[in-house]
Amino acid sequence: MSIFLDLIPVSRAEEILQDIAPPMEEEWVSLLDAYRCVLSQPITAQEDIPGFTRTVVDGYAVSASDTIGAGEALPAMLTITGRVGMGDGDAGIVRPGECRYVPTGAVIPDGANAVAMIEYAEESGDEVLVYRAVAEGENLTLQGDDFRKGEMVFPAGRRLSSRDLGVLGALGVTMVPVRRKPVLGIISTGNELISPDKTPGPGEIRDVNTYLCRGYAEERGTVPRMYGIVPDERGPLEEAIRQAVAECDLVCISGGSSKGERDMCAAILADLGTVHAHGIALAPGKPTIIGTISDVPVLGLPGHPASAYVVLVALGDVLIAAMTGSAAARITVPARCAAPIPSARGREDYIRVRLEGHDAYPLFGKSGLTNTLIESHGLLRVPDGREGYEKGAEVEVILW
Amino acid sequence: MSIFLDLIPVSRAEEILQDIAPPMEEEWVSLLDAYRCVLSQPITAQEDIPGFTRTVVDGYAVSASDTIGAGEALPAMLTITGRVGMGDGDAGIVRPGECRYVPTGAVIPDGANAVAMIEYAEESGDEVLVYRAVAEGENLTLQGDDFRKGEMVFPAGRRLSSRDLGVLGALGVTMVPVRRKPVLGIISTGNELISPDKTPGPGEIRDVNTYLCRGYAEERGTVPRMYGIVPDERGPLEEAIRQAVAECDLVCISGGSSKGERDMCAAILADLGTVHAHGIALAPGKPTIIGTISDVPVLGLPGHPASAYVVLVALGDVLIAAMTGSAAARITVPARCAAPIPSARGREDYIRVRLEGHDAYPLFGKSGLTNTLIESHGLLRVPDGREGYEKGAEVEVILW
Repeated sequence: MSIFLDLIPVSRAEEILQDIAPPMEEEWVSLLDAYRCVLSQPITAQEDIPGFTRTVVDGYAVSASDTIGAGEALPAMLTITGRVGMGDGDAGIVRPGECRYVPTGAVIPDGANAVAMIEYAEESGDEVLVYRAVAEGENLTLQGDDFRKGEMVFPAGRRLSSRDLGVLGALGVTMVPVRRKPVLGIISTGNELISPDKTPGPGEIRDVNTYLCRGYAEERGTVPRMYGIVPDERGPLEEAIRQAVAECDLVCISGGSSKGERDMCAAILADLGTVHAHGIALAPGKPTIIGTISDVPVLGLPGHPASAYVVLVALGDVLIAAMTGSAAARITVPARCAAPIPSARGREDYIRVRLEGHDAYPLFGKSGLTNTLIESHGLLRVPDGREGYEKGAEVEVILW
Repeated sequence: MSIFLDLIPVSRAEEILQDIAPPMEEEWVSLLDAYRCVLSQPITAQEDIPGFTRTVVDGYAVSASDTIGAGEALPAMLTITGRVGMGDGDAGIVRPGECRYVPTGAVIPDGANAVAMIEYAEESGDEVLVYRAVAEGENLTLQGDDFRKGEMVFPAGRRLSSRDLGVLGALGVTMVPVRRKPVLGIISTGNELISPDKTPGPGEIRDVNTYLCRGYAEERGTVPRMYGIVPDERGPLEEAIRQAVAECDLVCISGGSSKGERDMCAAILADLGTVHAHGIALAPGKPTIIGTISDVPVLGLPGHPASAYVVLVALGDVLIAAMTGSAAARITVPARCAAPIPSARGREDYIRVRLEGHDAYPLFGKSGLTNTLIESHGLLRVPDGREGYEKGAEVEVILW
């Protein structure tokens, strides 16, 4: 193969990833286990929430018209005819000139249409003095105020947050239809790699990418499965890839940053399946390989950890999102370039940046280093149609 | 007790939480299990990383002075004396007029101080033509370029990201000293509450806060333990609190939004331990209770789900951060008020906002509702010394 890779644009790589992404099947999980799962179906309210009109304060359920003109000097005087308890289904009735005590969250009696807060009322025997007029509907949550029967509350593809779990509880959804979490296989290749529990000898380097990919897998809501360090030899590498493809929904192979290694990885993929791309107009990440074996997507990542991580964010996110029918599990924020960022047309650049308030400071580091990964807050993408950004330009930053 | 709570400022509540936070003990976990754990000790590089000078490209290790003046028309001609393999400890030596092939990541031979990329070189028999001059140090990562021996790489209190895991691998830290994850006990109280798998009868409401608190606990890196729905009765509530305090590192009791319930919860806390605060100048969240029983912090949250969640973010985050010696596990971004936000001096307001680019739109909803929790992107804090924010004001938003 040529020294020069045949580069495809990132937009084409994204199309390929969409095409090859195997959709994850639906499964039902307990609401207790649904945190960060992706909904496989929209969730619709099966009834009005709340199911009845409630008070949001402690006070007296009244007919608002009975309090017209009430004030400190001239309170409205109402007869108290009872007290509603929490969870009481029958709150009784409030007739003109009457009121009933209601604790926060209780049902409003028939005939009442507002609640006077206890802070502005005074009970004295059978009478309650109300020192402030209340408007119709005041201090009430009406039936269906939160969600109406039949309303779609969550679309399919929603990644469930802690708040979503609470709302699913309110909706009575205790078994949740979600996409199965993809199993992400992780292979690190390289004759120079040793396990981090060993001390490197001359020419040896500890394996970083296994841990980087594992953390990424957890961060993105997938299930990591590790295949360890594999030497850059045809036999062991092919065996590891076969096994990972048989056991996983997608496989990331990192390493092979040299031409010989890249070519061997691509050759194995071509023999066992299909190479869709070898070389992407992306920096860092140019030598990335996209393949499939038996419909399992395989990403060949650069060996440099920082480059590998950028490719995971730039392309892995697209693949996982397509597999789960969701948006990428990441946060993007607007920011302002604090320094000019040069780039080249025809290539998409991902620049590590440090955020200080609204300002994004580019961190340019040597590509083999990892320190910018931990000193930066995220990535600034320079699309391939741009030659960079001027200082002060409004941009988006993908938060780590 | 009085209808009116004796409110303390949020700053005082934060001090109390710092004071009562029990520090989590140190434990050692495998690097494989360290994602999102909080470091209990700083991590220092035990040796230079990388431990040797490496090439970051495929090419020819040369003495830079041998390439002075080299160009397309007049390449430098060097004798190739060998090829360095990945992981080779001994890369040999490059003398003036010589070069050696080096694949990306390999050791640089003695005598070489730069690498000419294969893209700009041509091999022909024993000779290599180099078509571009290289400067000293070009295409090299020097020993210690990433981290120097003795350099502090992570401070204690760092919450480990996926990138941090990779760097810990590089540093050879396979067992990681971390703070034990706090066990967060969750109690929902209320006679009106039913389990979400039941259909509410008149006056009944499904339990939301158990799921909200559980999700929050997972989001914040704690271990949730649930005690279910407890009726607002002295005996069962006291029993549930006793059990939770015995088994957990902190306990959140939600519910008791009515005065009677709040008073009962506070009375139990006072009997079993100490009530440090009952009523905080915070909206929503005014009736919040802070207590301790046998040195276990207990937060009494409002029953309204949205209010309970705001208190978890406003105060729970402070408590958990103090327990683990870390910053709060949340992201804050700068934003601009897209509408005026009124507030009151002497009270800290937390407004749910929707972000559109840099603009934060306040969502004002009735306090009993949960829909704003899922329609918003985060919280805008209005400190108690302010009367609000004008449209266009620069603010910070705590992302959900």
